[in-house]
Amino acid sequence: MNITILFGHHVRLHRKKRSLSQEELADLCGLHRTYIGAVERGERNITLLNAEKIAAALDEPLPSFFIESKNDN
Amino acid sequence: MNITILFGHHVRLHRKKRSLSQEELADLCGLHRTYIGAVERGERNITLLNAEKIAAALDEPLPSFFIESKNDN
Repeated sequence: MNITILFGHHVRLHRKKRSLSQEELADLCGLHRTYIGAVERGERNITLLNAEKIAAALDEPLPSFFIESKNDN
Repeated sequence: MNITILFGHHVRLHRKKRSLSQEELADLCGLHRTYIGAVERGERNITLLNAEKIAAALDEPLPSFFIESKNDN
């Protein structure tokens, strides 16, 4: 799976697990709602600093966003 | 440790473990030698796709570049 799609997949998973809207997550990490939506769809080649902001806002370790599990496909 | 510095630290570690020069690593991943140097110094807020290229060229899993061990400080 492409790395940006994998990252976006994990962002959506963790966000929904916390019952956060894209807007609420965007506010938590100081990014725009539409940017979060595009990241979740794998449409943004995000930078490390923005990836770290999102992981921190979701209180999940950054490495976990790059681990592909069997049911990720 | 800042995420870009942590990533650069691991790139240098793995590159030296394989006795590769910055130029040889740059050639392997289709990036410029000076860019690799700046990444290793933590001076580049690298994107996921470039991070993945470097990890693949070093044949190391991308998540491992974001794990901070005690002796990383």
